[in-house]
Amino acid sequence: MKNLRTFGEFALIAELKKSFVKAGGRLKVAIGDDAAVFEEKAGRSLLATTDMLVEGVHFSASMPPYKVGQKALASNVSDIAAMGGKSLYGLVSAGFRKNVRYKYAKELLSGIKKEALKYNVEIIGGDTVSSKVTTISISLFGEVTGKRYAVRSGAKEGDFIVVTGTLGNGAAALLGKGIYIPRIKAAFAQEAVRAGLIRSMIDISDGLSSELHHLAKESGLGAFIDIKTVPLSALTKKRALENRKNAYRLALNGGEDYELLFTVAPKNIRRVLRLGKSKNTKLTVLGVMRDKKCGVKFSDFDGELKYLPRKGYDHFA
Amino acid sequence: MKNLRTFGEFALIAELKKSFVKAGGRLKVAIGDDAAVFEEKAGRSLLATTDMLVEGVHFSASMPPYKVGQKALASNVSDIAAMGGKSLYGLVSAGFRKNVRYKYAKELLSGIKKEALKYNVEIIGGDTVSSKVTTISISLFGEVTGKRYAVRSGAKEGDFIVVTGTLGNGAAALLGKGIYIPRIKAAFAQEAVRAGLIRSMIDISDGLSSELHHLAKESGLGAFIDIKTVPLSALTKKRALENRKNAYRLALNGGEDYELLFTVAPKNIRRVLRLGKSKNTKLTVLGVMRDKKCGVKFSDFDGELKYLPRKGYDHFA
Repeated sequence: MKNLRTFGEFALIAELKKSFVKAGGRLKVAIGDDAAVFEEKAGRSLLATTDMLVEGVHFSASMPPYKVGQKALASNVSDIAAMGGKSLYGLVSAGFRKNVRYKYAKELLSGIKKEALKYNVEIIGGDTVSSKVTTISISLFGEVTGKRYAVRSGAKEGDFIVVTGTLGNGAAALLGKGIYIPRIKAAFAQEAVRAGLIRSMIDISDGLSSELHHLAKESGLGAFIDIKTVPLSALTKKRALENRKNAYRLALNGGEDYELLFTVAPKNIRRVLRLGKSKNTKLTVLGVMRDKKCGVKFSDFDGELKYLPRKGYDHFA
Repeated sequence: MKNLRTFGEFALIAELKKSFVKAGGRLKVAIGDDAAVFEEKAGRSLLATTDMLVEGVHFSASMPPYKVGQKALASNVSDIAAMGGKSLYGLVSAGFRKNVRYKYAKELLSGIKKEALKYNVEIIGGDTVSSKVTTISISLFGEVTGKRYAVRSGAKEGDFIVVTGTLGNGAAALLGKGIYIPRIKAAFAQEAVRAGLIRSMIDISDGLSSELHHLAKESGLGAFIDIKTVPLSALTKKRALENRKNAYRLALNGGEDYELLFTVAPKNIRRVLRLGKSKNTKLTVLGVMRDKKCGVKFSDFDGELKYLPRKGYDHFA
């Protein structure tokens, strides 16, 4: 019997995409990008995204609930930012065990609130229910003013591939039994998109390798990155050493970094790097988009050109 | 140790309300009504609501997934309708067991889709994850054009109390191990609110008694209904008889009917009843809103005036 263990989450999402709505009319982007886009009026579009986090899958019962709440909200802000949008309104549903301690529930919600304040998100509604496992579902609405928003499919051959911040932090925190709270580079992304400097963008939730494959596939292209350029944090290096892991592998496949991966036309790369500086956002050029037939490759430390395995996190795997 | 079992869901929601955002600025209604209201521009407000449904709490594993999906979407449409709004966009998150059969997941999503089509809702985004229990979280966005929307707190002393459709259907279906799919009286509610005919409104998710207490409390009033007027469906009567239950008790406390309970100024009651007829929506006048000091009462079959117990469904009870 075909079940989801063999079927895989991505196949199910494909099913969702197929059987649900297609973009058209005021709905400019439907299921399949970081957020949906619907045009409210000329010069203003609303963005919408939703995430569900389940104990035992996305976080563990031993993790501090305050941080679990923070991360839940931040990951949604990241989706809106990946379209170049500003986050506005949030809806929060939470399922708690019947015997949950009040303090646990309160801290989890406080973490969501704290992070919402940080990004000027107003929590406008919610639902609380009982469940066998703690479950958080957040829907977030945002906007882009002007005509521009970033999608995954906009990359062109020759575009520079750029990433914000440092990578491997999500995996490094997990190795230390911790939970990484990203700082979402939303202000930089909004301004870069508004200025027309970004051709395609995605947020790094499942890992750099997986997200790069997404950008390439959706844009009908290949890609090349130089492994030596991948920006590692001090924490990533430290935890990798302590746990005898390859730091670059953590950065490529670890996920939960919530940095932004985007592509830029060569003529705009200087302006983008300057904007990064003015927004206090570290930017690193990793490589370039290639023709589709080149595939998605990286140059390893030995200088050899290799296919980049696509190792995203599949919740059903 | 204080835990949620003793604390109760409503106390937690109160905590959510307290610690989360308050209405103000463009946010006209925040947490606490059927849906949040934020003013997009003069003459147009967006409505937002969210619900989380958990297997073993809101539905059972043996229920047909298609109908579970239908009900999940319909209950959200009901929340938007209770504000006088038109449902527009939905976000659907679903948590499935790792060993879920593909057919189960597909049918559940198809049920959501079917019901979305019925009310012209576009599903614009979603998330699928693995979970120990099947979990569905739907966020729904709608709109009201014009300045009016219905809230729970708008009732005035002397208002007639009116309900759409028949009651007890949710409880009756459950007694037959079935699941009731309501027809949401959204078109009637939209027109009645736009015409300024409705002073306060709530949808019946937890049961007539509980919702009437909500309307009274939020409006700072008491209420009186005549038990003999409560409209029972043939199914409610049949199932009550079969199961030796009191049909009126099913109607008062059963919940999951998703009919609309609202109040109307005496001068408008004729227009409302006429509108009901033209929209093919059965309406029943149950009683009147009273001064707060009268409490929430009903006249029983023996003609005696009694306090109406508030028996809403508490997920944590």
